Amino acid sequence: MSLYTNRQWFYVKRPEGRVGAEHYELRETPMDDELAINEVLVEQRFISVDPYMRIQQAERNTYDLPHPLGIVQRAATVGQVLQSNSNQFKPGDWVLGYSGWQTLAKCHISELQKLDPELAPVSTALGVLGMPGRTAWFGLMEAGRPRAGDTLLVSGAAGAVGSLVAQFGKQAGCKVIGIAGGPAKCDYLINRLKLDGAVDYRAFSTTAALAQELERVTGGGWDVYFDNVGGWITDAVMPLLKLRARAVICGAIAQYDGGLDQPDLGPRFLQHMLFKRATIQGILARDFTHRMEELRAAVGPWVKSGEVFLDETIVEGFDQLPEALNSLFEGANTGKLLVKV
Amino acid sequence: MSLYTNRQWFYVKRPEGRVGAEHYELRETPMDDELAINEVLVEQRFISVDPYMRIQQAERNTYDLPHPLGIVQRAATVGQVLQSNSNQFKPGDWVLGYSGWQTLAKCHISELQKLDPELAPVSTALGVLGMPGRTAWFGLMEAGRPRAGDTLLVSGAAGAVGSLVAQFGKQAGCKVIGIAGGPAKCDYLINRLKLDGAVDYRAFSTTAALAQELERVTGGGWDVYFDNVGGWITDAVMPLLKLRARAVICGAIAQYDGGLDQPDLGPRFLQHMLFKRATIQGILARDFTHRMEELRAAVGPWVKSGEVFLDETIVEGFDQLPEALNSLFEGANTGKLLVKV
Repeated sequence: MSLYTNRQWFYVKRPEGRVGAEHYELRETPMDDELAINEVLVEQRFISVDPYMRIQQAERNTYDLPHPLGIVQRAATVGQVLQSNSNQFKPGDWVLGYSGWQTLAKCHISELQKLDPELAPVSTALGVLGMPGRTAWFGLMEAGRPRAGDTLLVSGAAGAVGSLVAQFGKQAGCKVIGIAGGPAKCDYLINRLKLDGAVDYRAFSTTAALAQELERVTGGGWDVYFDNVGGWITDAVMPLLKLRARAVICGAIAQYDGGLDQPDLGPRFLQHMLFKRATIQGILARDFTHRMEELRAAVGPWVKSGEVFLDETIVEGFDQLPEALNSLFEGANTGKLLVKV
Repeated sequence: MSLYTNRQWFYVKRPEGRVGAEHYELRETPMDDELAINEVLVEQRFISVDPYMRIQQAERNTYDLPHPLGIVQRAATVGQVLQSNSNQFKPGDWVLGYSGWQTLAKCHISELQKLDPELAPVSTALGVLGMPGRTAWFGLMEAGRPRAGDTLLVSGAAGAVGSLVAQFGKQAGCKVIGIAGGPAKCDYLINRLKLDGAVDYRAFSTTAALAQELERVTGGGWDVYFDNVGGWITDAVMPLLKLRARAVICGAIAQYDGGLDQPDLGPRFLQHMLFKRATIQGILARDFTHRMEELRAAVGPWVKSGEVFLDETIVEGFDQLPEALNSLFEGANTGKLLVKV
């Protein structure tokens, strides 16, 4: 009895450099509608594409074992219940899950979180009120410890986490400077996010030149650095720390194209930590999963009032998933990148 | 009226690489015995030689402006009062001061701290109950936050700060592994300091080989890394961090031979901070100067009982000061290096 066709992107080959379509295979699998008790069949509407996915494709252990080959690419998803064998869900209900890159999934209800589309657009569960929002909020507030008047420097500032960190920093009374690639994104930082300054790293060809511009735009350095990119941008940033500065390491997207297996070289900088009695702290969204209620209480009202927002770059079509993932590393997105099924 | 001859080492030339005698000039200056009210004339007995001195010789600002050229090399000193114009000090009293590399100094009493030679040997004021002890104690306890059962890895473990950190770690119930240069120092770590393991970095020619040995000896990595050396040793150490590990950056002696002006390259490692949600914190002895009473309360009893000690490498002769400083960077000392005048 096969009523449905499930379309699935299998992760089949480990990338050495940039990830792309050649590391995936699209398969169509017949799917019946038999559901165990407390199972529901979900049809995905939005599938998340996030930089962290590339980390798990590294050969080495990172914060997890490597993503196995030969299975559907894991990812967070927002969908609607098609059929239900639970009295807690009915067809049409919106749900957040972690079903991966496939159009359909049978899920136990314990894997799902019901979404209320009246409260906030459902895609925010993959954005400001989901993993990126949690990362930005707790990473900044707990590891960055921003104080009014601090200078907050954010790399990857036009991305999902970065654009939220920048706005949370403004809410905390910081002077916020964003780093992004290209004039369009810098324009976005200034005119849409209303930041105090923007630096287009693509306009500089050396670490020293970028550092000089960062020093100028920050007005002498940073109290908090929220790092999403790593690589040579962070090389330029680190020596500009101020007394008792705090760096938050949230991502290193510039190093994900193979640099996690074979780290490349940068100037040593730990002596500056000593000179300035500064701290660096690495953070991961999963450490704050149990504190979503706090996130919603703190950030929810700003989202409702429009004071804080997360713009979306929506790619249409399930077939586009591998290319969408690839485009993250090209810096093609502004805000949260989503694939609409 | 010149009754005395003061012998002084002037710092006259900024080193580009290793510091040595060629950066100093020995001068003899006549000195009278006129003392203002609350001034005393001190004759130095022990002059301190510390790695941080090389930091201040860098051309760039570090945690201070660079040490000026053309003045007496600054340093902590222990001496005896020769003449006094204060009712608080009498000839023969032992004092701790910051009089630099000179045999005599007129000091205002506010610059001096009286030492009781009955309580502890006076040279401990330059060691376990002075700046190195303070650095080791507060650096480890406040930034390293050791817990019983943690694996504590210490670089420069046979040095002044390192050998104290290692012993404080044992007191805290840690498994302590020391890194040092050469078999004699490693023997010292095992047989004198009673550490749980020792790694002779000089026995390895690549970062990867050193890392492999460190992984073996630590039994899978470190919870706390107390870093006195930086450079390629720290390159090998960093990726071996465990979940929620804490690195304390106290020194970077391997980078002091010019590497502070022109930082050299090492593999980028900040992605590991993220994977393990680890922290790095830079510390400086001066931030804890106001907490000496706490240090004495915590560590004093161990010093008295002999549970904790700081061995001394004593160089005889005021003339040897520049060579003694140089020898720090050769790794010639075990424990605290002092010059006896």
